[in-house]
Formats: sequence, C-alpha cells, structure tokens
Amino acid sequence: MATLPPGISSAEFETALGKFEEAVGEEWVFKSDEDVALYRDAYSPERDEPTERLASAAVAPVTVEQVQQIVRIANEHRIPLYPISTGKNLGYGGSAPILSGSVVVDLKRMNRILSVDEGRCSCVVEPGVSYFDLYDHIQQRGLKVWVDCPDPGWGSVVGNALDHGVGYTYGQYRDHFGSHCGMEVVLPNGEVMRTGMAALANDNQWADYKYGFGPYVAGLFGQANFGIVTKMGFWLLPEPEAYRRGMVYVPKRRDLIPLVDHVNYLENLGLIGQPGFRSPLGASRAREPELRALLEKPGGPTDEELDRFAESKGIPSWGVELQFYGPEKTIAGSWDYAKERIAASIPGATFEDGVAYRFPLTEAQKAEVQRVHRLVDVGVPNMSIFSIAGGRTEQNPDHADGGQFYFAPMIPRTGEAVLEAGRVLAEAYREAGLPYNDHFALPACWHYRAFIMITSLPVSRLDPEVNRRSRAAFEHIARVAAEHGWGEYRSPPFGVDLVMGAYSFNDHALRRFCETLKDAVDPNGIIAAGRGGIWPRHIRESNA
Amino acid sequence: MATLPPGISSAEFETALGKFEEAVGEEWVFKSDEDVALYRDAYSPERDEPTERLASAAVAPVTVEQVQQIVRIANEHRIPLYPISTGKNLGYGGSAPILSGSVVVDLKRMNRILSVDEGRCSCVVEPGVSYFDLYDHIQQRGLKVWVDCPDPGWGSVVGNALDHGVGYTYGQYRDHFGSHCGMEVVLPNGEVMRTGMAALANDNQWADYKYGFGPYVAGLFGQANFGIVTKMGFWLLPEPEAYRRGMVYVPKRRDLIPLVDHVNYLENLGLIGQPGFRSPLGASRAREPELRALLEKPGGPTDEELDRFAESKGIPSWGVELQFYGPEKTIAGSWDYAKERIAASIPGATFEDGVAYRFPLTEAQKAEVQRVHRLVDVGVPNMSIFSIAGGRTEQNPDHADGGQFYFAPMIPRTGEAVLEAGRVLAEAYREAGLPYNDHFALPACWHYRAFIMITSLPVSRLDPEVNRRSRAAFEHIARVAAEHGWGEYRSPPFGVDLVMGAYSFNDHALRRFCETLKDAVDPNGIIAAGRGGIWPRHIRESNA
Repeated sequence: MATLPPGISSAEFETALGKFEEAVGEEWVFKSDEDVALYRDAYSPERDEPTERLASAAVAPVTVEQVQQIVRIANEHRIPLYPISTGKNLGYGGSAPILSGSVVVDLKRMNRILSVDEGRCSCVVEPGVSYFDLYDHIQQRGLKVWVDCPDPGWGSVVGNALDHGVGYTYGQYRDHFGSHCGMEVVLPNGEVMRTGMAALANDNQWADYKYGFGPYVAGLFGQANFGIVTKMGFWLLPEPEAYRRGMVYVPKRRDLIPLVDHVNYLENLGLIGQPGFRSPLGASRAREPELRALLEKPGGPTDEELDRFAESKGIPSWGVELQFYGPEKTIAGSWDYAKERIAASIPGATFEDGVAYRFPLTEAQKAEVQRVHRLVDVGVPNMSIFSIAGGRTEQNPDHADGGQFYFAPMIPRTGEAVLEAGRVLAEAYREAGLPYNDHFALPACWHYRAFIMITSLPVSRLDPEVNRRSRAAFEHIARVAAEHGWGEYRSPPFGVDLVMGAYSFNDHALRRFCETLKDAVDPNGIIAAGRGGIWPRHIRESNA
Repeated sequence: MATLPPGISSAEFETALGKFEEAVGEEWVFKSDEDVALYRDAYSPERDEPTERLASAAVAPVTVEQVQQIVRIANEHRIPLYPISTGKNLGYGGSAPILSGSVVVDLKRMNRILSVDEGRCSCVVEPGVSYFDLYDHIQQRGLKVWVDCPDPGWGSVVGNALDHGVGYTYGQYRDHFGSHCGMEVVLPNGEVMRTGMAALANDNQWADYKYGFGPYVAGLFGQANFGIVTKMGFWLLPEPEAYRRGMVYVPKRRDLIPLVDHVNYLENLGLIGQPGFRSPLGASRAREPELRALLEKPGGPTDEELDRFAESKGIPSWGVELQFYGPEKTIAGSWDYAKERIAASIPGATFEDGVAYRFPLTEAQKAEVQRVHRLVDVGVPNMSIFSIAGGRTEQNPDHADGGQFYFAPMIPRTGEAVLEAGRVLAEAYREAGLPYNDHFALPACWHYRAFIMITSLPVSRLDPEVNRRSRAAFEHIARVAAEHGWGEYRSPPFGVDLVMGAYSFNDHALRRFCETLKDAVDPNGIIAAGRGGIWPRHIRESNA
C-alpha cells in the first residue's frame, strides 16, 4: 500500500482494515494497489504529482449497520473516511477523497429502492441507486412519474443531491437537494439519525414534509462532512401529458437584457423548464471572416458594430430555447403568451415552434429527442454527454487523453451580469493563457434563480504541464471572480479552500461556524475531511 | 418585576438591564410590569397559572450591532434571551418566551426593506417588516411582484418563515422557509454570519442561490435557537396575468381518494395553487335532520349509508376549489384539462367555473375576492381571518373572551389518510371530552406535499378550567397521533417537548444531535431556550 492515512502506522492501519473485514466481509475491503487505483480521480488535475489525492483503501458496506461499524472502527483508530455514493462526480473529484490516505466508504452496494409512490409522487432510495436504476424501476412498474436527471445518468441520485447537483426540468425539481425530503444518516459517532418526518416512529410520511419539527439539520449533510447519508427521500415529477419546445431570437446585443427578464418571468411563474440561451451570431463566427476580424480588432468591437454586422447578415444576436411541460392546452397557451409578451417588448424578436410530444414517448420519438435536444429534458437518463464533451474542452481540444474540471461561478440572473461576466472572465482567461468564448459567453441555467458561467479547464493523464497550467488558471480566475462578488457552488478537490474562501463575510464567519459544528459532531475528524472546505480541528491546527 | 431569569439575582439582572440600556437607549428597554405584560401570550392556555411563560423584560434593538451587544451582555450575565420578530404568532406563543424569565429581544424596530428586485423577483428584509409593510412598499413602487402571504398579514415576513409558516399560492412559494434565500444571523457568541451567497464579500447575489458552497446551515435558524436572524432574502412571485377558480364536486364518500390523487397531480406539476377541499354533505348537516340522525346512530353510518343519503338529496360528498395563476390562455387550458382528467375517472363528478380576474385588480374586484374567497389567494395581506376565527372555535364557541391554540398533525397526502385521520382524531377528541368534525374532517393544504389535519383547542382568559381541559386534550391527542405516525410541524410553547418527542427515531437521535450542536454553538444557553424542543445543557441537566 503506497498511501497511509496521515499519522497512522502501517501496523495500526492493518489492524483497522482487519476490523473492517470483520464488519463487511473480506471481499468488500479493497486494499491492493490495483483495487485502490480504481478510486483515483479519473480527471484529477494533480495526476501523478505528490499532491494527488489518493485513497489508502476502500470498504463497501451493504447495510446501515455495517456503515455504523465502519464509523466506530474509524473512530477507534482515527482512520479518516471518505464516503462516496457511486463516485461518478467527474470534474469534481470522482471517487477520490479530498484528504490523501482516507479510506473510501463506497456505498454502491447499498442500492435498494425502498419506495416509489405514484400518487404522492415521491421515492426513498439508498446511495447506490443510480438515475438509471431508478428510471428502470419506474418504467418496469409502469409508474407515471419522472426523475429530474443530471447529465450523465450513471451517478447516484443521493450523491448528486448531496453535491447540490442540478437537472433540466422545472426549477423546483432541478434543485436536487431542495427536492429531497427526509434523510437517514450515520453520524460520526456511529449513531443513525433521521431528519424531518423520517424521524417519526412510523416512517410512512418520510418523503411528505421535509422540516419535521424544530431545527432543520439536513443541510449539514450536503457538500459536507457531518455524517454518511444512507437513505434519502425525493419528490418526483408527475409525467406530464405533453412537452413542447419553442425558440425565441432577438436581433441586438443588448436585447439580451429584456430577454433574460422575460425568461425569468416565465420561469418564476413555473411556465417553463430549464431555458437554454444561445448566440446564433457567436455560432456564425466559424463561417464569417468579417465577424472574426471584428472580434479580433484591438479593443474589440462595440455593441453597435456587432449589431450592424448581425443586421447586415440577418443573424440574431441571441436566442433562447424554452421548454414547456404539462397538459397540451396549457403549454400551447404558455408558448402563445411567451411569444406575445416578448414580441410586444423587443422589436424584431422572432419565434420558431420546436418539437412537441405527448407522453409516453415512442422509441422513434426518443430518437428524435436525442437528435434535436437531450433525453434528460424529458426525464430519461443517458450517457450522451460523453459523446459531446468527453475529454475535450474548448481550452484543450487536443487532449483527448484527459478530461476537465470546472470553474463555474454563479452570477446574478440578469442580462447585464452575463455581458459583464463574459467580459471579465474572458480577460481573466486571457491572463491565464487559455482561450474563452469572448463576446458570446452565455450562462447555464441549471439553478433555478441564478446563472452559472460554466467553464471547464483541461486535464491530461500524460502532460503534467497541462494540469499545472489549469490549476494556476483556476486559482487566478477564482480570485478575479471573487473580486466581482461571484462565488462557486461546487469545487474540484484541490480548490475547496479557495472556493470556500470567497464566502468571506465577517472574517469567514460561515466557515468558522461550520468548524465549530464539525468539532462538536466529529471530534476525531474522521468523516470526509476537507469536503465543503471544512477541515477537522487537528488538520486545521497542523496547517495553521 | 415579578419574573426574573432563572438563577439570576435581582441585582445582577439590574446590572444587565443597565447594560442593555447603554446599548440600545433607555427607552428601548422595557421592564415595568405594564410594559412587560404586553409580551404575554394573548392566547396562552396557561394564563395566570404558575406555569405561564412570562418575560422578565424586553429590549428592542434597531441595528445589528445592537443585537450583537445584547447577545454579548447576555452571555456575560447568563441572561436568557427570546428573540421575536413582530410576535404575532398567535396560537403558537405570540410574543412570550418559552422559558419564563427570558428577556424578549423585540426586533420590530428593525424594519428596513433592503431591496426588492422586480427582474430577479426577490427581496431582502429585516425581521420587523410585516407582510403589510412589504406589500405596501411593492405597491408604492408599482412593482409587478407578489409576496405569498399567511393569514393574518400583520406578522413578520422573517418571523413567519423562521416558524416554517405557510401561505396560499403555488406550493414552492407557500413554503416560506423554503422560499427564503440567504440570511444574516447574530450567533450566540455575538458574531454576525451570513449564509449562502450572502456570505460573499459582495452581497449582490444575496437572494439568488441559497446554498452557496459547503454545508448549508440556514435550517438551523428556523424553529430553533442557534442565533438571532437579522436579515433574510426571499423569492417573490411575479404578478401573473390572470387568476381563475374552479370547483370540482364528487358524489361518493370514497371518491375522495381519486380526487386527492388528481389534485396532487395538478399541484405537483405546478398547475394550481393551494387547493381547498370541502364537504358539501358535511356542510348540509345543519339543515338535514335525517343526516344528523345517521351520524349519531350507534357505531356511526357506513360509507354506503352516507352515499345513499347524499345521492337521495343530490348533495356531493366532497368538493375541491382549485386556484389557477398565470397567463389567461394557460390557466384556461389547465382548468379544461383538470375537468377532462377528473371527469374521465370519477363517475358523476361535476364542475363549476369560479371567479376570474386579470391583474392588477380594481377595488371592486378586491371586494369580490374578499366576499367570494380570500385576499391572501391573490397575494394581498389582510386581517379578515379574525372576523372568521377570532377567539371562537368549534370546540369552544362561547369563549369569545379567549383564543385558541392548534393541534395540527401532518398526515400523508392521500384520501385514505384523510378518512383514517378523521376517524382517529374524532375518537381522540371524544375521549378528551371535546367535539370534532367527525366524518367530514378535511385537511388544510398549506404545505406543498403533506396534509395537515388542523384542529384548534380553546383558551380562556377567565376560566382556567377551559385551559386545563385544552392542555390535557392536546397531550392526549398528540399521543394518539404519534401512535399513528403523525407528527406536528409547529407547537404551542407548552407542547414543544411532547411534539419533539414524537420525532423519536433511534431514541430521539435527532433531538440529541441538535443538543450537541446547541451546546457547541451556545455554550451558555442564552438563545431561545426550549424553542423547537431544544434546551441548553444546564436546563436539560436540571430537569433530568
């Protein structure tokens, strides 16, 4: 074994592993180099460097009782644990720990779907249940419910929610942590706790009401290290009668500002799912040398110059794809309304009807969905994003040997903020020596009420220089973003302190409050050290 | 001063009050009997008894810095504090503390509306801002946004959310805590902390994204005692184009089961606001002696007997009022769909169009709203509920001198659960010697995904026997409910331990976890002892 938990002797580690084996069975403790290597972060930007975050071993329990035993053994021997659900969070650490030497607690075997209730539109699942598993279960039982899926669909429903992951349908369901309801968690002392109505002696309202009575503690278990979540309830969407898409295009650069306001209005009223902003003008760059020249001139083009070019070619500056879910009559009415509202306010706005379906979809329709937009838009998990993104990124088109990690700051949900962030991030990327979609950068709209300017940085398995440059770029761009008041909602493992550092109000009062809680709940600091930027006392002190 | 903080000498208390006066100004520390009496719970079921929960004094800061000073002084002298926003939470304790002798920290003077953003549909407010204040501010600025209001409208927007209060429009907005985004809180050590994006150095995304990065701690400040919340962001609704109501009636008793399923479907898809279940058959009791006879016969009527009676008179067993908000075309489509869907599944279902408006409302339309349904349905705060409920309750129609408190268990959102809960609660009420709406009890649908069987128990300012009976009834009925797995989401002060006691999974692991957090964050136990059923260590130990 190359990696040991910090401060633990090889002999003591062997003793602890022996106890893990007693708890879960010898075949479910992984300690050979080959086995442990499977837990490396496939997209680590620290690959093969001394800082690469490596597990010392892994243990795969199948019951809550086994998780409790593991936690008790870890306390006894001060073994740091790093729980993962399925470990598919590529770009954000995958199945590797944040603290090297941690023992990964791999929950993949805990994959029971405990309930799916069609009438109440909810489910309760274990961490090893993937979106594929849950979808298949629902299809097999013929239930008329949907799971809002992230992309790709092989990840854990529980793990994605705990990482504050996001999806594609209605805003309230896209917030996967917010649409969870009730959880079971093994605390750092080995006790099992349930939150909300799941804490009642009779758990038949597990997924009905999240707060229960008194303090609502579930937030402490997302992006955090206060326990190991072993079950979660979720609110599902009912299968709608129908779906339709509609495209809106606006001519001028600054039309983005009212366009965003209109889209916000539609989303805040629950009339649309995730909107998809586009720039036809930006997309035309490849075939328009005149536009490229304009973009490359010193100081860049003015808005008026871009507008003149766009008008001369009849290319809209911006567009947005809207998604409507519900009864056919309802969504036809909503699309009509969107057209009327936007046409009345943005001169030259144009509209285009998109695809429309009734559910359930035929196989031919599913193929059309996949061709025209995305299966996740209609609640079908899949892996097609890998064929799009793969290891290639705009910043690193040649490194198919690699992958990427994300720098994705949240910005205000306004057109002004998008234009400003595009400018600022382009400058920061230039300073970092990496390309960026200048002038036409658009936000991802996964989050319900905020925009994310998602950008990715390349990693390589072969060229450490690529990784060093990406890490340095991340640090530079994160600092620039923080200066503008933009924070991130997630972080690759090497960036947790930097990202948490931006949430600095009153000398990092939030982080210090979390540290107080952490020391109280996990005095030995055994659970997921570093996750969410929170470290146990002994590591904070040794780093001070 | 009749009441002192427990274990504090009169001299030390005087010293602390002197320091409070230095902090906030003499006129904002209330210590005379007359002044302190204003903080009594107007609806206390312990009125004039030795257990009545009484403040020792009150202090009204106007800035966050003053709140910090108060907290620091309280720590120094071990003075228990009980923060209130506006203290209008009648039926759940009002402005009185849970622990007698606490100094009420009255935040009514902190009443700034820090922002209302129309495009992003959000606001940031202080605890002294009432629903009336916020509504008036929005009207004066002519902004096209709504606040989902509780009934009545004089309470605090912050206070209601922190109490897990609820409203009347769309499910996601009815959850007032869930639709908050970002808070500022004075911790028990006197430090100020902000959560989510509000913790960024630049707070221009305060109300855009609630989780920020890392552990999400905001849940610890609702129904709890981990700090004093001094600002909160909220998501508002955009003003919809139009509103319409539609009534659905179903003939048979067990039609309630599919009716609830259909209503759940509509709500889960975001097509309707709060539904209002009704029983025309139950309402006909007063004028139908034959029905009364049926209900009073030994063993009660069978479903078939009730159905025969209902059919003979042409009275529907159940009904539901649906509320649609949005573009006219959208909501017309949704109402059509609701009719088609329900008609296809429940034989004999009938439908009735209700009122319809476009916004903004004329004064004549507002009068119609108030006559036909409720102003809160269209986001207008008001006080009309007092003319309906006042101090009278079904259980105590004669005690206009009194008030009520609530016993309101959450039950699953199914028709079966409603019928069962009606039967079980009627039996429990009978055992407690109080009347109950047997056979036709229906849930309140404030919560998005769960039903509440809201019942109220009478209190009297004149007759302690009424209060004793109500307290005993609460204890009996809460025990019966807990046996059926039904917990409450809120509690009158005297019931917090009983209510929290039902959340008993694994020997009250949830409560014990909260106690661990409480001891770490508030070692002197000065903030809101007992709130949410969580007591500081010194009180737990002295009660043990």
